[in-house]
Amino acid sequence: MISMIADRGHLIDTDHLSREEMEELFIRAEYWRTHPEAWQHAFPGRFAANLFFEPSTRTRISFEVAEKKLGMETLHLDGERSSTVKGETMEDTLKTLAAIGVEVVVVRHQGVGRLATMAEVDTGVTLINAGEGNGGHPTQALLDLFTLQRHFGHLAGLTVVIAGDIRHSRVARSNLWALRSFGARVIVTGPESMRDPSMEEVASYLPFDEAIEQADALMMLRVQLERHEESLFTSADAYRLAYGLTRERLERMPAHGIILHPAPVNRDVEIESELVEHPRSKIFTQMENGVWIRMAVLERALLGRG
Amino acid sequence: MISMIADRGHLIDTDHLSREEMEELFIRAEYWRTHPEAWQHAFPGRFAANLFFEPSTRTRISFEVAEKKLGMETLHLDGERSSTVKGETMEDTLKTLAAIGVEVVVVRHQGVGRLATMAEVDTGVTLINAGEGNGGHPTQALLDLFTLQRHFGHLAGLTVVIAGDIRHSRVARSNLWALRSFGARVIVTGPESMRDPSMEEVASYLPFDEAIEQADALMMLRVQLERHEESLFTSADAYRLAYGLTRERLERMPAHGIILHPAPVNRDVEIESELVEHPRSKIFTQMENGVWIRMAVLERALLGRG
Amino acid sequence: MISMIADRGHLIDTDHLSREEMEELFIRAEYWRTHPEAWQHAFPGRFAANLFFEPSTRTRISFEVAEKKLGMETLHLDGERSSTVKGETMEDTLKTLAAIGVEVVVVRHQGVGRLATMAEVDTGVTLINAGEGNGGHPTQALLDLFTLQRHFGHLAGLTVVIAGDIRHSRVARSNLWALRSFGARVIVTGPESMRDPSMEEVASYLPFDEAIEQADALMMLRVQLERHEESLFTSADAYRLAYGLTRERLERMPAHGIILHPAPVNRDVEIESELVEHPRSKIFTQMENGVWIRMAVLERALLGRG
Repeated sequence: MISMIADRGHLIDTDHLSREEMEELFIRAEYWRTHPEAWQHAFPGRFAANLFFEPSTRTRISFEVAEKKLGMETLHLDGERSSTVKGETMEDTLKTLAAIGVEVVVVRHQGVGRLATMAEVDTGVTLINAGEGNGGHPTQALLDLFTLQRHFGHLAGLTVVIAGDIRHSRVARSNLWALRSFGARVIVTGPESMRDPSMEEVASYLPFDEAIEQADALMMLRVQLERHEESLFTSADAYRLAYGLTRERLERMPAHGIILHPAPVNRDVEIESELVEHPRSKIFTQMENGVWIRMAVLERALLGRG
Repeated sequence: MISMIADRGHLIDTDHLSREEMEELFIRAEYWRTHPEAWQHAFPGRFAANLFFEPSTRTRISFEVAEKKLGMETLHLDGERSSTVKGETMEDTLKTLAAIGVEVVVVRHQGVGRLATMAEVDTGVTLINAGEGNGGHPTQALLDLFTLQRHFGHLAGLTVVIAGDIRHSRVARSNLWALRSFGARVIVTGPESMRDPSMEEVASYLPFDEAIEQADALMMLRVQLERHEESLFTSADAYRLAYGLTRERLERMPAHGIILHPAPVNRDVEIESELVEHPRSKIFTQMENGVWIRMAVLERALLGRG
Repeated sequence: MISMIADRGHLIDTDHLSREEMEELFIRAEYWRTHPEAWQHAFPGRFAANLFFEPSTRTRISFEVAEKKLGMETLHLDGERSSTVKGETMEDTLKTLAAIGVEVVVVRHQGVGRLATMAEVDTGVTLINAGEGNGGHPTQALLDLFTLQRHFGHLAGLTVVIAGDIRHSRVARSNLWALRSFGARVIVTGPESMRDPSMEEVASYLPFDEAIEQADALMMLRVQLERHEESLFTSADAYRLAYGLTRERLERMPAHGIILHPAPVNRDVEIESELVEHPRSKIFTQMENGVWIRMAVLERALLGRG
């Protein structure tokens, strides 16, 4: 679905973006990556606000760096601590930000669907989803795809294995829609209790040790025990044994296969510590690419305002 | 009273400002509103610190935007969380800020009179009051008057009704002094228990439903139940029935009468939700004007340092 | 010891710096102090992150001002509150910062030796120690020495008395190494229970009232009762009587002797309140000098990256 939301520069999730729009974002991300001389003159004096209702140091500072590299001014609003933000509707918060001169608001929120609703209201700001409960995390998916494209030169035909807590992962969801747009094949894998039937309608499920043998890219998800209703593994050790990426499993992957992870990594849980810095791991490259993708997304938001 | 405080660029409260000084601030606010090309070159590299001992996301970000629009550098000091700030006298905090190069300090503090005392000490910084307990909130009053002047073209002769918790409102107090300087007529109204005899020496009191019939502007105050010693209304419904602005009451106001509110609004408590976006509501215009007024106040502070 | 650490621009502690390196820092600090026209064009668009695992408003804002004066972009990471930072290794946090484009990380941490360990790893960022448990606080020592040199014109031959809680003071430790490099004589003094045998191998110990009679500079330490294992003084009064700088004691110092204190001052505990602003007190001058020294240290960090 390409809705009017996309047309106004909002970024709600990857399923609101066409393949062409994503390709354009990758072109612009590559431009920002390779043209540091253009950064500071891009959007001086334009204001972005980062409105975070859930803690997220990593995503917040990645956006903050992207905003500042573009010459933008940034405001930080901590939705957890700010009494004003807590006591008022999100609509009023966004209208207030618009009134004082903010054009783009980067939002992390636990409520799935809230941002899509807000994007339909004329608040005066352009919205960027920085992670929404178990819903979506589009800039993470875009940076993952940009990393794959930079590495392989193309996305069509790649087999991407997404491994871990599929059911609770907004990263998995946003990646699935985006990868399918480009004709990549997605295999999901992980513990039985973490499977998600809705995702298996469009991606095949395979047991972990079978899946990795087909992976051009293995996308490990972060184990987030705090999100689980029941505790499924008695220990980090048990998880690693069953679903962690060990050196032995790496050797069973195709020789050209690479490792992705949205970070922060739980070393020696979902991935053996020494593999984080392995040449086939692109984890820190993903973080770097996150800045270029977010610059492209911010540019799209500002230009989308007309 | 025009004291030496005003002469050094401090902004303690509206009763320290002459009518001419306020008019000059409105002229400069209008200048900043209409000359975006002048913003970034105004005061580059000059430092402001925002020192907040009480939470106030809205006022803080309005000042922060004003500072950044003027090209200033900003520091944020959270007086509630900062252990250093908590353990030392305000005088030492201000002298420290002066020593490291800060010129203007925007202060929100619960202690009435603290800022006036600090302004008499040679701390080396210029002070701006961003809300002081039940005392005063001069930039709010200035933006209210600027909004009235932009709308009506003049302030003299206007009838402004201030409605709500008069006794605990720093906004009411700062507005009263400022409006009277310009020859506006002020009527205060609200629950009996929230009346303030000292204000009624210079403003007339009328019951709510009589007052609104005379209002060129109805300035609703925010209901702040947390500031009340006794709970006066058993529910938000009870308050709305007695003192909330409903559509029915709006129709009893003069046809040209406008609605003001310092925000954030408690929708359906002091004002019916759908009226917030009514054409006669200037609530979001006030927020926008707050940035222009704060730019003017910051400019005055920097120029007042000589 | 001049290690490779220094060569890459890291600032771990004063004992990693040669006398020549410190002299160069003082020359650059004096340059930044006297050349405000050079500030904003120094390092535009270069990113520093301030990573504070312990609260420190004063040191944090001094670094923040120094960074901004140099035209740098700043990120703030609160290691106490940030869930991401808390859950991951410091090495991963630093590598993440490097990946998103941060070049210099200013760290305050309670773990003595952590920064030296991190400096030996190739994280991609240059580290500056902003206070490390009871270990060291090199920028404080450098600003103290810079203050002494600006005042006396030289450091060799000066007698500096460091007074107070020697055992728990990172400031005392960093100053001792630096002062000895320049041929200054250091006397330590304070309560018996706060003595530190390791420091007395290189500095002489004298009782407080004898020590001050020889002081070209009396460096008072901050009383930090929260760091003591046992409570040594029943009251602030008792401390002041035995080890506080009173007007009477000031008169027993050499007439040219000056007072230093790292601040924030506990007025009327380690120093009589009225002496804080005494002409012979250089406490606020120290704070000002802290910005120039930190600009020099940041410059060294950026240039040290080659």
